[in-house]
Parts: sequence; structure tokens; C-alpha cells
Amino acid sequence: MDQRLSLVTLGVRDLDRARRFYDALGWTTGWQEGEDVVFFQAAGMIVALWGRDQLAADSGVRDGADWGGITLAQNVGSSEEVDRVMGEAERAGARITRPGAETFWGGYAGVFVDPEGHPWEVAHNPHWTLEEDGSVRLS
Amino acid sequence: MDQRLSLVTLGVRDLDRARRFYDALGWTTGWQEGEDVVFFQAAGMIVALWGRDQLAADSGVRDGADWGGITLAQNVGSSEEVDRVMGEAERAGARITRPGAETFWGGYAGVFVDPEGHPWEVAHNPHWTLEEDGSVRLS
Repeated sequence: MDQRLSLVTLGVRDLDRARRFYDALGWTTGWQEGEDVVFFQAAGMIVALWGRDQLAADSGVRDGADWGGITLAQNVGSSEEVDRVMGEAERAGARITRPGAETFWGGYAGVFVDPEGHPWEVAHNPHWTLEEDGSVRLS
Repeated sequence: MDQRLSLVTLGVRDLDRARRFYDALGWTTGWQEGEDVVFFQAAGMIVALWGRDQLAADSGVRDGADWGGITLAQNVGSSEEVDRVMGEAERAGARITRPGAETFWGGYAGVFVDPEGHPWEVAHNPHWTLEEDGSVRLS
């Protein structure tokens, strides 16, 4: 598994409140009224805001136990690479909470949880640009 | 506040177990026996492993409530800039859990918690290199 992080998703209970906070900090986003995820391009990676309940369900974890509302992600170049990295993680001792599969947003992804309870999504997202150096750009 | 992320620290209950997991994934670190934090250079940012109790105390949050063991950080160029960003965050509605002050590791930092309970440390770390493009390098 490459030594890099593509996306940090912050689970939020009130998307509008959270979005207004980062907006007040001067952060800009292409978010449009009605969208349920807010993506911020943060240099070579992405910070996202998404409903905490949805993020917990999507990550295969239970809120209120060890998980506290943040899921990490690494984007890779293909569905095959998702499966390869998920296999590496499983052999390294991770718990697989969502095996690699096609996703509702049109990509392919799986989720593993590290031995400390921190979930990582491994994703191929055809809508974003994965640069040679591993940085990720919103389209 | 710049739109970037410098450091993601994963709180861990067993540093050795966590380090061995990321090691098994092929991640490399300059960590040496006896050090209580593990830093991974992850492209232009850093991923760290640190005791979950220490991280909670350092972030001014209570484990088991909304917080789930991850603290974000943004590194900036000076102590004055730490204070400036902390001020911006407070005016944007953040709760300050640790005002800017000199730290035990020889830098200057403060912590704010966003309206959703996610802590951000704003830090000036003279031991790391902050590049023009905002990327951060372990020395």
C-alpha cells in the first residue's frame, strides 16, 4: 500500500453548520445547494464533510465505540488495485468491513479497519484525477 | 486559514501493534525503539501514530464522546501565524481547547475544535520543513 492519504472525510451532524464554519475560515468548495457531501481541495488531497451516520454506515463501523467520525481514504488507479491493496491490508491484520465492490457514486471501493479501529477506504474514483505523484484533484 | 492539511494523527492503544500493522503494509518510518510517536512521511503530509490517551489530552477533548481518536493539524510558518489562524478559527465559531503556546516538543501550537467536535492543531514546528507549496517534510 502506497504511503499516502488521498481523502479525509469528517462526519458531521449538521452539514450546513459545518460547511459555514469552513467557509468562514476562508475555505472554498464547488459545493452546490442540495448536494449532501462537501469536498474541499486541500493541496494534493481532499477534505470532505459528510453526514456522520452515513459515513459510519459506509465505513462499516459503529459510531460511539472507538470510531469518532473520521474516515481516511487512499485513491488508487483501478478496481484491480483496490482489490490488491485490500488484500495487503487483510494479510497485515486489518478487519475488512466492506470488501471491494462497485459503489453508489460510480467507482469501486472497499473499507478496512486498522487494528486500532481507524477505517480506511481504498477507492478507485473515475471522476477524480489521480496524478503521477499520488496527489488527487477534484474534477 | 489555508486550505490544506499537514498532519493526521491516529490515536492508538497499542503503539507497537499499530506500528507493526503499517509496517506490514509496507510503510516506512524513521521511528526508533523507545520513541513514543511514529511519523510516516505520506507524500506532502505526515501520518502519525501516538497514544490515544495522550492525543486526547493534547487535543483538549474527552475520548468516548464525539471524538474517536484522530486529530488533524495544519503547520504554519511562525508562532505569530499560529495565533492568527487560531483567532480566525475562534471568530468562525470554533471552540479553543488549547490556546497558542510553546509546546513540550519545542514548537508553538494551539488546538481548536470545529463545531462537529473534530480537533485541529495549528502548529509551528521548527524541526520540520514547510515548503512553499504548503507540503510538509520530516527532517
